[in-house]
Parts: sequence; structure tokens; C-alpha cells
Amino acid sequence: MSAIPWQERPENTNDILWRYSENPIIDRYAIPTSNSIFNSAVVPFGDGYAGVFRCDNKAVQMNIHAGFSKDGIQWDIEAQPIQMKAGNTNMIASDYKYDPRVTYIEDRYWVTWCNGYHGPTIGIAYTYDFKTFYQCENAFLPFNRNGVLFPKKINGKYAMLSRPSDNGHTPFGDIYLSYSPDMKYWGEHRCVMKATPFEDSAWQCTKIGAGPVPIETEAGWLLIYHGVITTCNGFRYAMGAALLHKENPDQVLYRTQSYLLGPAVSYEQIGDVPNVVFPCAALHDSKDDKIAIYYGAADTVVALAFGYISEIVQYTKDNSL
Amino acid sequence: MSAIPWQERPENTNDILWRYSENPIIDRYAIPTSNSIFNSAVVPFGDGYAGVFRCDNKAVQMNIHAGFSKDGIQWDIEAQPIQMKAGNTNMIASDYKYDPRVTYIEDRYWVTWCNGYHGPTIGIAYTYDFKTFYQCENAFLPFNRNGVLFPKKINGKYAMLSRPSDNGHTPFGDIYLSYSPDMKYWGEHRCVMKATPFEDSAWQCTKIGAGPVPIETEAGWLLIYHGVITTCNGFRYAMGAALLHKENPDQVLYRTQSYLLGPAVSYEQIGDVPNVVFPCAALHDSKDDKIAIYYGAADTVVALAFGYISEIVQYTKDNSL
Amino acid sequence: MSAIPWQERPENTNDILWRYSENPIIDRYAIPTSNSIFNSAVVPFGDGYAGVFRCDNKAVQMNIHAGFSKDGIQWDIEAQPIQMKAGNTNMIASDYKYDPRVTYIEDRYWVTWCNGYHGPTIGIAYTYDFKTFYQCENAFLPFNRNGVLFPKKINGKYAMLSRPSDNGHTPFGDIYLSYSPDMKYWGEHRCVMKATPFEDSAWQCTKIGAGPVPIETEAGWLLIYHGVITTCNGFRYAMGAALLHKENPDQVLYRTQSYLLGPAVSYEQIGDVPNVVFPCAALHDSKDDKIAIYYGAADTVVALAFGYISEIVQYTKDNSL
Amino acid sequence: MSAIPWQERPENTNDILWRYSENPIIDRYAIPTSNSIFNSAVVPFGDGYAGVFRCDNKAVQMNIHAGFSKDGIQWDIEAQPIQMKAGNTNMIASDYKYDPRVTYIEDRYWVTWCNGYHGPTIGIAYTYDFKTFYQCENAFLPFNRNGVLFPKKINGKYAMLSRPSDNGHTPFGDIYLSYSPDMKYWGEHRCVMKATPFEDSAWQCTKIGAGPVPIETEAGWLLIYHGVITTCNGFRYAMGAALLHKENPDQVLYRTQSYLLGPAVSYEQIGDVPNVVFPCAALHDSKDDKIAIYYGAADTVVALAFGYISEIVQYTKDNSL
Amino acid sequence: MSAIPWQERPENTNDILWRYSENPIIDRYAIPTSNSIFNSAVVPFGDGYAGVFRCDNKAVQMNIHAGFSKDGIQWDIEAQPIQMKAGNTNMIASDYKYDPRVTYIEDRYWVTWCNGYHGPTIGIAYTYDFKTFYQCENAFLPFNRNGVLFPKKINGKYAMLSRPSDNGHTPFGDIYLSYSPDMKYWGEHRCVMKATPFEDSAWQCTKIGAGPVPIETEAGWLLIYHGVITTCNGFRYAMGAALLHKENPDQVLYRTQSYLLGPAVSYEQIGDVPNVVFPCAALHDSKDDKIAIYYGAADTVVALAFGYISEIVQYTKDNSL
Amino acid sequence: MSAIPWQERPENTNDILWRYSENPIIDRYAIPTSNSIFNSAVVPFGDGYAGVFRCDNKAVQMNIHAGFSKDGIQWDIEAQPIQMKAGNTNMIASDYKYDPRVTYIEDRYWVTWCNGYHGPTIGIAYTYDFKTFYQCENAFLPFNRNGVLFPKKINGKYAMLSRPSDNGHTPFGDIYLSYSPDMKYWGEHRCVMKATPFEDSAWQCTKIGAGPVPIETEAGWLLIYHGVITTCNGFRYAMGAALLHKENPDQVLYRTQSYLLGPAVSYEQIGDVPNVVFPCAALHDSKDDKIAIYYGAADTVVALAFGYISEIVQYTKDNSL
Repeated sequence: MSAIPWQERPENTNDILWRYSENPIIDRYAIPTSNSIFNSAVVPFGDGYAGVFRCDNKAVQMNIHAGFSKDGIQWDIEAQPIQMKAGNTNMIASDYKYDPRVTYIEDRYWVTWCNGYHGPTIGIAYTYDFKTFYQCENAFLPFNRNGVLFPKKINGKYAMLSRPSDNGHTPFGDIYLSYSPDMKYWGEHRCVMKATPFEDSAWQCTKIGAGPVPIETEAGWLLIYHGVITTCNGFRYAMGAALLHKENPDQVLYRTQSYLLGPAVSYEQIGDVPNVVFPCAALHDSKDDKIAIYYGAADTVVALAFGYISEIVQYTKDNSL
Repeated sequence: MSAIPWQERPENTNDILWRYSENPIIDRYAIPTSNSIFNSAVVPFGDGYAGVFRCDNKAVQMNIHAGFSKDGIQWDIEAQPIQMKAGNTNMIASDYKYDPRVTYIEDRYWVTWCNGYHGPTIGIAYTYDFKTFYQCENAFLPFNRNGVLFPKKINGKYAMLSRPSDNGHTPFGDIYLSYSPDMKYWGEHRCVMKATPFEDSAWQCTKIGAGPVPIETEAGWLLIYHGVITTCNGFRYAMGAALLHKENPDQVLYRTQSYLLGPAVSYEQIGDVPNVVFPCAALHDSKDDKIAIYYGAADTVVALAFGYISEIVQYTKDNSL
Repeated sequence: MSAIPWQERPENTNDILWRYSENPIIDRYAIPTSNSIFNSAVVPFGDGYAGVFRCDNKAVQMNIHAGFSKDGIQWDIEAQPIQMKAGNTNMIASDYKYDPRVTYIEDRYWVTWCNGYHGPTIGIAYTYDFKTFYQCENAFLPFNRNGVLFPKKINGKYAMLSRPSDNGHTPFGDIYLSYSPDMKYWGEHRCVMKATPFEDSAWQCTKIGAGPVPIETEAGWLLIYHGVITTCNGFRYAMGAALLHKENPDQVLYRTQSYLLGPAVSYEQIGDVPNVVFPCAALHDSKDDKIAIYYGAADTVVALAFGYISEIVQYTKDNSL
Repeated sequence: MSAIPWQERPENTNDILWRYSENPIIDRYAIPTSNSIFNSAVVPFGDGYAGVFRCDNKAVQMNIHAGFSKDGIQWDIEAQPIQMKAGNTNMIASDYKYDPRVTYIEDRYWVTWCNGYHGPTIGIAYTYDFKTFYQCENAFLPFNRNGVLFPKKINGKYAMLSRPSDNGHTPFGDIYLSYSPDMKYWGEHRCVMKATPFEDSAWQCTKIGAGPVPIETEAGWLLIYHGVITTCNGFRYAMGAALLHKENPDQVLYRTQSYLLGPAVSYEQIGDVPNVVFPCAALHDSKDDKIAIYYGAADTVVALAFGYISEIVQYTKDNSL
Repeated sequence: MSAIPWQERPENTNDILWRYSENPIIDRYAIPTSNSIFNSAVVPFGDGYAGVFRCDNKAVQMNIHAGFSKDGIQWDIEAQPIQMKAGNTNMIASDYKYDPRVTYIEDRYWVTWCNGYHGPTIGIAYTYDFKTFYQCENAFLPFNRNGVLFPKKINGKYAMLSRPSDNGHTPFGDIYLSYSPDMKYWGEHRCVMKATPFEDSAWQCTKIGAGPVPIETEAGWLLIYHGVITTCNGFRYAMGAALLHKENPDQVLYRTQSYLLGPAVSYEQIGDVPNVVFPCAALHDSKDDKIAIYYGAADTVVALAFGYISEIVQYTKDNSL
Repeated sequence: MSAIPWQERPENTNDILWRYSENPIIDRYAIPTSNSIFNSAVVPFGDGYAGVFRCDNKAVQMNIHAGFSKDGIQWDIEAQPIQMKAGNTNMIASDYKYDPRVTYIEDRYWVTWCNGYHGPTIGIAYTYDFKTFYQCENAFLPFNRNGVLFPKKINGKYAMLSRPSDNGHTPFGDIYLSYSPDMKYWGEHRCVMKATPFEDSAWQCTKIGAGPVPIETEAGWLLIYHGVITTCNGFRYAMGAALLHKENPDQVLYRTQSYLLGPAVSYEQIGDVPNVVFPCAALHDSKDDKIAIYYGAADTVVALAFGYISEIVQYTKDNSL
């Protein structure tokens, strides 16, 4: 793996997270058919990076595309959406695919996404090479979104965060944890984190959802997540962080009362859905404490933010709800 | 098992299902604390019957109570709700319990119900004696209702119908099938039946849900289910029937376009929720072709309807959507 | 025409309209397939009466059936819905038909009803014999309900009242007038009567709609209409009366502030939709001043109310909004 | 004052409150213009009783009428609504009046009601004789309902319970307390009781509102109040009780988890608004421990229930939330 | 007619439609009283162009103004709204006027617009000179919007597309066709095109409406139309194209699955209603295959887009739903 | 007091109000913890100015902070929110504080704001020095917003404008006037101004609310207020003016049909809530006729607009509804 994308913190700020100065890194029209490319996931792959990208085409059909990059910033995204093969099931029907996450567990890359099967639920697939993808059973019944796997088994089982929802622009949403012995059957569902009372932390009072794959730290699993407030002009998405118990990640150790990054620059405030930052992936280099967070901006483009893991962890502890 | 409750079809009707003349069989105040007793389940037990009853108390808290009967009509319902012991999990928290179903599989009785865990989901418990109940992991993430087990394993796995919903008076709802190897982890979720277009069959156009445990017949699994229409004065619940493929019960072979029984007498039309018939259990005697359906009426009392299985099967085939 | 149905006013009341003591005159199960029979229209025909009846079948599909009666009270309703032939168009597609009205103009009987064509609109057909019906072009674009023809041409043109609506349980609704030279093209649309401010007359504050075909009197066109209030438990339908200008019936001369008949007996208060009286037809005998109003009760059955035309006219004048 | 209306508890029940066997005591058509008479208030007056009655006329305009009775059961209600004179203000405009309460304080009878002034708020008037009424300033800004005065000054000030609401069929509502030195200016607003979490006591989970004027007991102010649950077919109103601190009645000492009386007989279940019991007044005879509660039933008629004050107090203590 | 406005396709794009580099061509404050000028219509007139412009004034009252231009880009818009004279009716009342379209048929210019008559419906007027306008009968009953005439009679009758709606920010909407022999009475209503299933083409899944007057081509009537998607932050309007059968224009031959132009630049993304492109007129020069589309941007200004008719036709055929 | 902030009208406009060229004057991140600073109030204080600022922190908790300025443009805002001391009550609980106004009456500065006490209501406090603040009883029961005091007693009583609301993004709202003898008890509530019919003045058709403290002029009390229209993409806030009767300010003498300033530049159109201008304070210098209006822009920053009082008064008279 090459060095993760990085820029030092600008001199005029103490913010825990800061934006890449060349944002957005992926334009809405980066592939010929796209209306928008956002809410996408990347992982180290070979000597560079691979990713799964949400590309809405100009019919505004949602699908996921593979992509490759040497530096994590310049991306070659496949013009065609991923064509799935049968994994642990032949039932790989899908009305739409969006908001992918990717993680490597044991011997392969696992992709999860919001999969259209009589409404949104959590699709699962694996790949060894980002060329051939094997789709598995949907994790859950509809309606669900933001299915995010932990990057290793916990207590011998796969573990997934998700957010039960409805079949529209869901006005509620909490984060749950589920386990599976085999990526086919899921159970032991636990409520992990709920949307907050308005008075306590309004930016996350409508709904919350897991963002990038959790990162293992000394202090627990570091979960970057999005939170939503309902203004009189619609939803506004920001991002915060939580620390989950390492062995029992349904226990929240700390959780930021303040957001870490909210919509405040033009590519986050203007677009198909104004005022959205939506993190879906993070590259991190534990050795030198850096993290690069990939987030969709205004449901239109992909942007990058940077930070130091230790600072995020400390801030989360110090400013917890 | 004693003979199931039974009355012959009245002379003046050709209806496929007919009401018991002494309905309702269980009054709203049948136990000292109850506001209403309805949507309840019964099975043969010993030389009589046992059941699990939805009793809303006068605080209108919803809970399930065990009960026993010699003839299936006169019931002794426990004054106290069922106290669960830990089954395959220690997480047996429950904010409320309602709309139980019961079936015997292999060596024990399984109870499923709508279980309050951060919203409605499907609770599971087993008992050998209707005295001690062992609660297992919830089958699914919230939000779900009307979880109904098949009375035997299918392809070596437990099989459950359910209806994903939201956390209110859900204005939608289709029936899904899920499998489990062990009553702990569930997967292979399939859409079985959907609410119908208004023009085709309006009584079931808002939502549908499985009723009693399916009955195995030559023609397939006989599923009595409820359907809902939204009038300008609220929901109206009626019941119909479907035949599901024996080996692959996510395939609907036939499904009644007309309802079999709809609210039309005073205890169905007047009560805490007017215009509801909600079937939750059925006793049947395959030998002499009889079925006795237990249904909640007006969300207030329990009533009985009768029919011949062969006639229901034939009617379902002849009047299918 | 035989004498219209009639009963004298009960001794203990001064009400302007009073109910038939043998109500309901048509039961919900009067034909083998019906779930309910209500909101129906009748006219003198031969030496008796003919009618067009709304019969929802047990799939709760809405359709209209022809029927015949000698006395206007005992009705023979055809078991099969009316099969339309092409009238002034070949486009006679219909997803559903309900709430018919019937009137005789010049040489034939005209039927109007709420016709399902991509949502509710006003269907038109004519018949000479209530055996063969010729369907014409829909009068209007969707969404519309309660299309009611005047019983003769006005200023040389056909005239129809209707109530523009939406495609659900419309929470608004005013009465409009439209003209046609030929029963094919319609125009000169005028707003006639609107729902009232809550403070002035709450029973008709949500929406109103024309009922029976208007009756020509010295004082103007007598229009019986329904009005709706939205209670915390849904809609409640009552009926009132208005007098419209004879030559320019978009002018309201008088209109009852009070309802004339509201839901107050069991067959109006209990049924598929509680608390509905919905008038669709009236037989009148101008010679002896009598009127017999046919109304749907609780969206379930057909009932009759009686009154004296002169009293209704006088009351409308004396108690006008 | 004559003996309050009374019937002993029926032999077959242990209920804390029981219904009068001749209910309803006032029919919907008890005065010539009325559509319904319900939610009304009575007090001892002279050697009998006087009251203020909510009479909706047949235009369904809401108003309050004076009435008189010798025994509290047979009532003579004035055919004309109360005509107000100017009390402490000339601004006595009113779009509608409903749900009155009456109490005697110091030297006169005070009436409060829901008063239409650009939406519902709390109207206040006083009378010495139930013939001449003097209207005062509205207590609060819109939107408010269920304003109920304490029967004596507390800490030297008038005290009123009320329920802030919106301008429709408010889906929320808690009970607040406000003080006034002079019946003109109000302040020191305190939240007293809130609607309950669904899981704890569903019958009062949508909204609550004060009922009759509180009764002073050794154990505190006894408040009979109504609570509402939202079923899939609308609101259902039941009644419970609370004990408030004598000197600081914004403190709730006890409050019933269960309702004391819920809709369960036909005149409560059937009517203009099904499933409503709505208490607005209570006569009590502290000497012999009896209470007679007047409540509106189904928004259509007035009914009576009886109980022993000491039993209600004890039950409230023993079954408190 | 002078040459239509034109700019060649920018070199860096293959888009079928491209924006004018000097957009917007009409600013929101182009006349002294205006808050915004958008959704407007133009036609060749004399040796230049005339138009009818939607100008919302600073009271945000909606009205239509005449305007003139030599080149189709620089416009002189009348400061005063059009004052209508009586055309085929004296009923020319209008609460508001917006979203005009203009076309020349036979001997005069016809203007259609959304006309406020107890809610939105379709207003019609004609003019010979854009100085004097004669208002005719409204085409339809309320509620309707986006009435667009074909530029010549079809089968001897005037033909109009429209979109039945409700009286608010209608969340549904399909395109219908109606005929009139005389611009007074309308009938033969046919459903032409519906909003699409979300999965197939989400940009047009909430509602659609006809844009400019259809253009006759060899391949059929070319209809530019708008489509709307509901995001969590409101409606987003884009434009696409369809080809309708020449003789029976209720038949859709082809229809673009992808939009042709969606909000993507600042004057489309920012304004009184963000994310709106709303086409209302098109100048075309069939000889040299060019089309210039006038569209409202962000409900605030008027902008121009260009394309080649043959390319649009071909694209529509090749990328049809 | 130093000279109020001022810039002359730009040469290219005749607008009654014009923006400060260096807007916004306070950035969203002006204090370390802030997410946004907007809707704030200022008054002359000492030889400069003091203010109370709405600062939402990065948890999006709403609070008010004191601030000081020499010129009214450069502001030092306290990093910590105001800590209240007990004024005329010990009940100074507050879930949140926002949208403050400030005025000097007799001997002290009074602050009013939207105070969270079981929902939004009007909080009141006084200060002599903007260092120590004494919180008083809330003026009203919930739910209320936009409480604005007159700058002197009227008829010997304090007078406050307010806008009764609900507990969400209230879709309605009119301005009322209330009086208090003592800043503790309030009464004599009068409706002053209502939202307008859509046809008359759509920018203020959803709701209205008082802005800065009214300014006494020869022509009456000059009230700058905000008005809201509901577009398909949410609320849009603009500002207008009214003149209220000097002695009886519940009488509206004139009221602008057009808005005076609406969202039209980027800092008003882009931000946490796009398209908001929300005036909360005005400095004026009656001697030289100038006014400087402070308004929140896009719920994100504070901006300034200027005008001449005499022109505003004249315009209000000349362009009144």
C-alpha cells in the first residue's frame, strides 16, 4: 500500500478534521453516464487502492462501480456497473444499489451496500480482485440502510452495523449491531446508538448511521458516523465519531456531542441535495496516526477530509455525550 | 386431543367460513386486569388445549398470558403475564408483547409474538408445558410484526413468515419468508405476497399479514391471512386464504381475491378498534376436514369461525387473484 | 309510474326529513357476491322503477349493477355488473365504477358515476331500457367525483355538477357546474358552492358534493347534497339542501346552514365506514309534494328518507347560510 | 343542595367507577336545535343544581347553554345559548364555545371553556345566577383547551390548569398550571403532567387534559382527567385520576397507571365520535364520600358515573405510575 | 423571423443539450416590480420575437407580462401585466397567472397558462399582436397545470396537453391529452405519459409535465417535458424528451430514460427554489435543425439551452424507456 | 452612542432597503464553539453597542451570548453563553435559548427570546450591564416564538408582540399583542396581524413574526417583520414593514404588500437553511432618519441592511395591503 492521501492541517484552524484543498476529488460527471458520484468506499489494494463507487446515471438510477487508483485521489472508475455473480445464493436480484462500504476480512474484500429488494435492505458481496464480485444473501429483511461490516470477526462471528429504516426518506434511524456465523444468517441484533434528544445534540437528532468501516484503536472501535437534523428546508447531514467497546461493540464508550465536520463549503452546500456530508470510507495509517475520510458531498461529488486518529479519539473522549 | 370446537354451517348461508353462534368466546374483561383480550393463539395440548393470549391491561400495556381449556371454548387464562426465562440468549428485554402465535415443532411448543425492543420486532420463545417459557433471540431487527412459524422444518430449516413494518400504524406491509438453521440466526429472506392493487382486491390493498400457523394440505400450505383497506375512517381488517408451495413456500400457488370473513357483526364492528377481524390461530382436524379459526374482533375480544379445509382450499383455487 | 315510496312523518318529530321505519331497504348481502350495496340511484321506469346500484363485491371491487322494482322498496338487483357498450367513444376502459346517479333527459336515461380512469373521474352512459348501456367519453380529466346531471338541458346545453378532488380520501371539495353541447365536450366551468368555514356550519366544512339529480321547483333547482366534517376519528357525512337559480344554476339562492339528516341510527353509525349518510337519488311526486330520498348508510346499505318538497324549500329559505 | 345523584356499585363488579344504569342522562336531541349535547359542567346551585352545557346545533356550531335541575339528572337546558355581557373587558368576541367547566370561588360561579378567538383558547366568565354571565379576558393566547380552575385561590391567586394545543385535532397535549392575581393577567406557568410513554400507560400516551374542577382531599387535590391513545382508527378517550400537592399543585403526588373508566358500552362506543368518555364535572358529597362524574360520551350525549372518593384516592396511590 | 438564438456546442462535451454561455438571459429584477422572472414563453413575431413572461412581483403575486425582442436574447418586458379582454366568455376572473406557453395556430397566437380560479386550472387567451389579449373559457375544472397546446389542429380539433394536479405542491402528476372543437368545450381526455417507477428513471418519478409547445418532426411530435424527483430536501426538476404519434399524440413512441438537462450550474442550483430547470418554450429552425430552449432556472431567472433537433430525436429513440 | 453603522444607498438602485457591502458582518465561526451565529439583537450601550447573539454550537445546541462593539459592526462575542440569575422567579430552567431581542425600558435592558420549557415559549430577562442577567417568568405557555417588547410602556403596561406556534417547524403563525402590569403576568391578548391570503401577498402567506423592537414614529409604531412562503423546497423568509397604532398597537394602520428585502445574495441563499433573511434588531438615529437592520442570513451568519425611516414609512403607507 502506498501512503494514504494526506495534507497537513491548515495553519488557521484547530479543527479535528479538515478538508482537502483540492476537493472535490471526483466530479459528478467523472464517467460518461453519471449524474453524480458520491457516497463511495475505498480500500488499500495491491500497491494502490481500489474502490466501489456510487454512480447515479443520468436516468438517476443508482448503481455501484469498481474503480482503481494509485494515490487514492486520482481514480479510474469503470464505466459499467459491477455485474454480480452468484455467491452463497442464486437470488441476486437487485432493483438498485447505493452507498457501498468495503472491507477486507481474512481472505477477501467484502462489499456491503443498500440493495433494492422490494425496498432498501443490505446487500453483501465479496471479491478477491475488484473484477469479479460474488453476491450473497441480503443480510436483513427490508427496510434497512447503511450496513457496515467490522473489519474482522468478533467473538468468532461476522459483525455488521446497520440502520433499520422505512421505504422513503426515513425520518428516524438508530444504529444496530448484528452477528453472523457465516455471512448468510444473521441474528443477535442489538441496539447500539440512537438519535439524540434535540436539546442535547441537534445535529444528530433525526437519525444516525454508520459511516466508514470501524477502525480498531487502543481505545475501542472508532466509528465515524453521520447524523441528521431536520431543518425547515429539509435534512442536513454532518459527521461525528464514537468509540465502541472492542469485544462487545454494542456498547458505546464515548460519542461526540459536537459534529466533527458539517456542510460549510460550496460543494457540500450546493448540489442535488444541499447540505450533505456523508462519510463512507476511511483510509488510515495507524503507524503515523493519519486518517483520510472519503465522504459524499451534497449527494453529488466525492470529497476528502483528513485528521489524526489519536486526536479524534481524544476529542471523542473529551467531548462525549 | 379432544374434538376441536365446532358448529355446522347455518342453513341460510353458503359462506366458506361461518361464525360461532356464541361469539365472542372470550370477553374483554375475562381476567381482572384486562382492558381487552384478542389476537390470541391456541394449540392442542394434553387432552385439551393450551394457548397464549394477548391481554392488554387497563393501563393498556400489551402482554401475553398462558391459558388452558378442555374444549377450546371455555378458557382459563392466567391472571399474570408469562414470565420468560433465558433461552438461547440472556437478552430477553421486552417493552411489550402482543399478537402471539404458537406451534409445535419436533419436541416443543414455539411461541412467536410482536416484541417491543426499540420498536416492534419478532420475539421467539419455547415451552414444553405452557408453564415455563424460554425466550430466544429476536428473529429480526425492528421493525416487524406478524411473525408466524411453519409447523415443521422446511429443507432442514425453521421457516418463518413475517411482515416488515414501521414503528407506528404502518400504512404498508407485505409477507416475507425467512429461514433459520437454529432459531438464532435468520436469513434467505424472500418476498412472498404483497398487498394488492386497489382495483384488483381492495380489502387487502393497504397491507397483509400472516394469521394462524400454516396448515399442510395436499394442495400446499394453507395460509389464512389478514388484509387491510384504508377507509376514510381508518383501517378495516378482513381475512383471506392462500396456498403456498410445499417445498418452496415463498411461491404463492393461489390466493383469494375475495375475503373469506370481514367485519359484519357487532362485536367485530364495535370495540376499541372498530371493524377488525384478525386471525391468529386455527385448530384443525384433518381427518374430518374441519377447521376452527380463532380471531381477534375489534381489538377487544376473541371469536371463533368454522369451515371445511377442503372447501377453503377449493375456493382459494377457484377464486384466485 | 306507481306511487313513490312513502311513510308519513312520525308523530313525535318535526324534522324536515324522516327515516323509513323499515330501513335499511337493501342489505349489504342482497346479491350473492356483494360485500355492501349503498350510494345508489333510482328513477321511475315503466310502471315501476329502475335503478343503478353500487355493489362492492367481496374482493371490495366497486361496480354498478342494474336493478328493478315495482314499489321502489323491494329491489331485484342484477347479479352481474353492467357491461358497457361503446357510446360516443370506443374508450370505455374502467378500473372501477361507483356512486351512480341516473336521470331521464329528452329520450333516454343518463347514468353518471365515478369512473376509474387513471384515478377517479366522471363516467357517462345512456340507456333506454336498463339492459343495454352505452358508455360515452368521460366528462372530465381526473380527479373528480360526484358528477350529477341536471334533468333537462339548460340554455340548450347539458349541465353537470361535479366535485374536483384528488386521488385519495380527498380532504377538500367544492361543487362546480359545467356545460356540454353534446355530452362529449365540456366547458364553461363555474364554482357553485364551497365547503363552509368551520365556525359557520361545521358539518359541511371539509367538503361537499351534489347528491340526487336536482329537482325543479318554483323556487329554483332543489339540490340535496352531502357535507363532511373531519372529526378526530375520521369523516362524518350528513345531508343538506340548496336552491340554485333556475336559468343560471351556478348561482346559489339559498343553502341550509343546518343539516337535514345526519348519522344517528345504528345502520348509519355502524358499518364499513361509520357515520355516513350519502344521498344519491330522490323520487318525487310534485303533484302531492312528496320526496323519497335514497341514501347510502355507513357505506354498507341503502336507506330511505321522506319529506315534503315544499317544506324542504321553505326550510332552506328560512335557514340559509 | 340536595343529595347528589347516586347509585350503589353493582354487585358483580369491583370497579372503582361504575356507570349510572339509566345512562345517558341527556340525549343528543334534548333541545330542539341540538345535534348533540355532551362535555358539560354542573354545580350545586340553590336547592338543586345548575350547569353549563355544550350543545352543538344542527349546523354543528358549538355553543354553551345554561341549564337547571333539581336532582342533577333531569335537566332543563335553555334553548338559547348564553349571551355574554362584558366582564373585565369589552373584547368578548367568540367564534365558538365548547367544553365548559364551572366552579364557585368566594362569591360567584366561574365558567371556563374553550373559546374561539382566532383558534381555540380559554374563555372565562362569571355569573351569580346562571342567568347573567360576564365574560372576561381570555386567559391565554391561542392555542389552548381544557382550562379548569381550582375551586379556591392558592397562595392568594387564582389557579388554572390548561392544555396548550394546536389549531386542529391536536396529536399532543400536556397539563400546565398558571396563576393569576386578578383573573385578567396570567403567569407562573408550570408543566404539571405529561402524556406517558406508550410502554408505561398507553391509554394516555397521545395527550391528556384536566377534567372536572379538582376536589380538595386530605391526600391532595384529586384531579379526574382524560387521556387519549391513537389507534389505527383514531383517538380513544378514557379517564383516570391524579393527586396534586395541595399548596403547590404543579407537583403530582400520584397518578393512575390504569384508566378508571374507558369506552365500553354502546353510548360511549357509538356516536358522532366513537370511543370517547370525556369528564367535565363532578358533584361530590365529602360527608358521605360519594362522587358523581358527568362525562360526555361519544361526543354525543351526557352520562354519569359514580364512585367513592376515598376509594379513588386509595386506588390512585396504590396504582401510581 | 430572424435567426434563432444560437451557440455551437462547446468543444469539451457531447451533451445533447448545452447551455448558453451568457445565461441567465433575463435577470430576476429585469422589470422594476419583479421578484423573479422565469418559466416563460416566446414565439417568432414580426421580424423578431414576442413572448409572455412569468413575472412574480415583490409581493410574490404571479402574473404574465408581454415582451418583445429582436434577437430572442435581449428582451423588453412590459412593466405592467397583461390586461385581458373578454374572448369567448365574460368570465375572465383570475386570482393569479403563471407558467405561460404560446403558440400560433391558423390566424392568431394562443396563450395558455396556469390560471387561478378557485385553485389552479388552465387559462386560454389569444392575441394577434401581443398588445390586446382575449381571454377565453378555462379549459378544465381545477386542479390543473402545464396546459400546452399543439401548434396545429389534430383531426380537426384543437389538442392540449395538461397535468391534473391538486391545489398545493402536488406530489404526483401525469400528462394527459384533451381535444376541443372550438377552444371552449374540451373532451376526449386520454392519459399520455405517467411518472416513472423509481427504479426505471428516478429523475421523473414524482411527476412530469409538458414543457414547450410540441415540435412536429418526421419522427413524430417532439415533446420536451420536465420531470421531478423528490429528494430529502425537496423537488428537483430536470428536462427530457418524448416522441408522440403524429395523428394520435396520446401514443408515446419514445421517451428518454435519462434527462437531457438537469440542474448543475449555480443559477439553476441557487435561487428562490433551488435545483429547478423548467422548460416552457423552444424556438426552432427546422431548416438548419437547431433548437433554442427557454427554461426557468431555480424559479428565479430565464435561461437558454441549445441543441440539434435531429440529435434529440435520435437520442430519444436510442435511449427510450 | 456612537453613530450607527451606515452606508449610503448604492447608485444603481431605488430599493427602500439595501445591504451592507461587507456582509456578513459576523461569520458562522466567529467564536470557537460556534456552528453558526445569526438572528441576533443589538442596542446602544455606553459609548458603543451591546448585543445578545444566537450562537448555535457545534453540537447544534442553541444559546444566547452577550457581545460588545464600538461601531456596531466589529463585535466581540463572549465565548460562553449567558448564565442567568433568578429575576422575578426561581424557575429559570431552559432547554435552549434562541432568536433574542433586546430593548431598553425605563431603567434597564430587557431581553426576550425563544426559551425551551417543554417546547418553545417566550423567555424574559433584564440586565443593567450585559454582564449579569436576571431571568423572569416565561411570558406565556408553550408554544410561542418571536416575543418582541415595545420599547416603552403603553397605557401603563408592558406590551409584547409574539407568535403562537406549535412545537415543530410551525406551518402557520400570526402576530399577537399581550400586556403585562409587571413583567410577570400577561393578558389582554389581541390578534394584530395574520398571514396573508396567497393571492394577495404570497411572501407572507405561511406565517409572519415580529422582527426588531418596534420604532416609534409620527406615523405609528414601525414594525419590521418577517414573512414566510412555503415553496416546494421549504420555507423562504423575507422581511416587510407595518405601522401600528401608537396607543392601540393591536391596530394595523398600514402593512407592506411587497417585501422590503428577500433572499437574493449568496450568504442569504446558501447556508444551514437556505433562503432566509430574519431581522431581529435595528439601530436607528431618528435625528438623521437612518436605520440599520440586523438580520440573520440563511440561519448561519449576521448581516446588515440600511434604509431611511421616512422612506420606509412612506413606502409602507403607499404600498399597503
